[in-house]
Amino acid sequence: MSKLLTDLIEALRCLPGVGGKSAQRMAFHLLERDRERGQRLAQVMAQAMREIGNCSRCRNFSETPVCTLCASSSRDRQVLCVVESPTELAAIEQATGYRGQYFVLLGRLSPLDGLGPEELGLDRLAERLAEGEIEEMIIATNPTVEGEATAHYLAQLARAGNVRPTRLAHGVPLGGELEFVDRGTLAHAFGSRQSLD
Amino acid sequence: MSKLLTDLIEALRCLPGVGGKSAQRMAFHLLERDRERGQRLAQVMAQAMREIGNCSRCRNFSETPVCTLCASSSRDRQVLCVVESPTELAAIEQATGYRGQYFVLLGRLSPLDGLGPEELGLDRLAERLAEGEIEEMIIATNPTVEGEATAHYLAQLARAGNVRPTRLAHGVPLGGELEFVDRGTLAHAFGSRQSLD
Ligand SMILES: [Zn+2]
Ligand SMILES: [Zn+2]
Repeated sequence: MSKLLTDLIEALRCLPGVGGKSAQRMAFHLLERDRERGQRLAQVMAQAMREIGNCSRCRNFSETPVCTLCASSSRDRQVLCVVESPTELAAIEQATGYRGQYFVLLGRLSPLDGLGPEELGLDRLAERLAEGEIEEMIIATNPTVEGEATAHYLAQLARAGNVRPTRLAHGVPLGGELEFVDRGTLAHAFGSRQSLD
Repeated sequence: MSKLLTDLIEALRCLPGVGGKSAQRMAFHLLERDRERGQRLAQVMAQAMREIGNCSRCRNFSETPVCTLCASSSRDRQVLCVVESPTELAAIEQATGYRGQYFVLLGRLSPLDGLGPEELGLDRLAERLAEGEIEEMIIATNPTVEGEATAHYLAQLARAGNVRPTRLAHGVPLGGELEFVDRGTLAHAFGSRQSLD
């Protein structure tokens, strides 16, 4: 196989979920029938890697200093949702009807990895709270050990700023069968059972 | 979501097997943790789309006038395998121990699509045969209606050039259960049953 083709197949493997076989299929597909879209993808990808930075206000991905979500005048300014990463922001934005503000930590508290309050931009978050508009902070960090520790820290930060902290509800996933729910979640959901009256 | 990010997600969908959800996952993955490899992929992809052409001898993908397979002095020059596309050449090269020459049609005879002998480079193939080195032409077009018609045409071309045409064997795929083999294949395999003595 040609050197350049081998290089392309190898480079495609940086995409998540793409192994050697899919990478080869992708390379051949582009070369055999879609060179124009391949060219376009290469150009957009280079530009995105180079130009997409982080919003100075919420730290979400943005190629402008302030992102479109932060710049929007139609979103609720009393609620701020804190997430670990842009992926989770996108998931919430797409799955829920939430129309408030966001703050992206770009990580979670992890002292061993050198991730402290400063790296997560918590000074900037404190400034946001000090502006006085925000009334509720929805803490949407992941339900992992580090995510929970981060949530705990954020809740203290919120209270110190006179902001009400809330946390996503834990429980049995919709459509999930009890049999396959992990024991911790099941125990929590059982203990937090709610009245149907 | 930012314009550039939306563009990247949309552009990634040109990859086979990549829908909206995977495209979004890929874009976030590259931006969040693999920008360098994303840059490299963009660069290699642009170069491959621009520079990979076809070998002047076998029409396989190549960024040099003559590909490495054709240039190799260690491959058998008496056998020529004819395939429809570079994908199939790669499949044969990877699955079999074949060490002969190739010729890639870049299509199959399809008069309604304007694909005739000229578009498939059959004049060039005839010249190869006329060189006198080739003794066997392995016809490995796909077992479709058009692939079979192409195989028929190629066999005539081979015979006219005093070359022995052969065709890949049809039959029940290894590891396939008879129950799930299509009727045509099953009938053919039954009719072509071979003695075990
Ligand atoms: Zn923002
Ligand atoms: Zn060649």
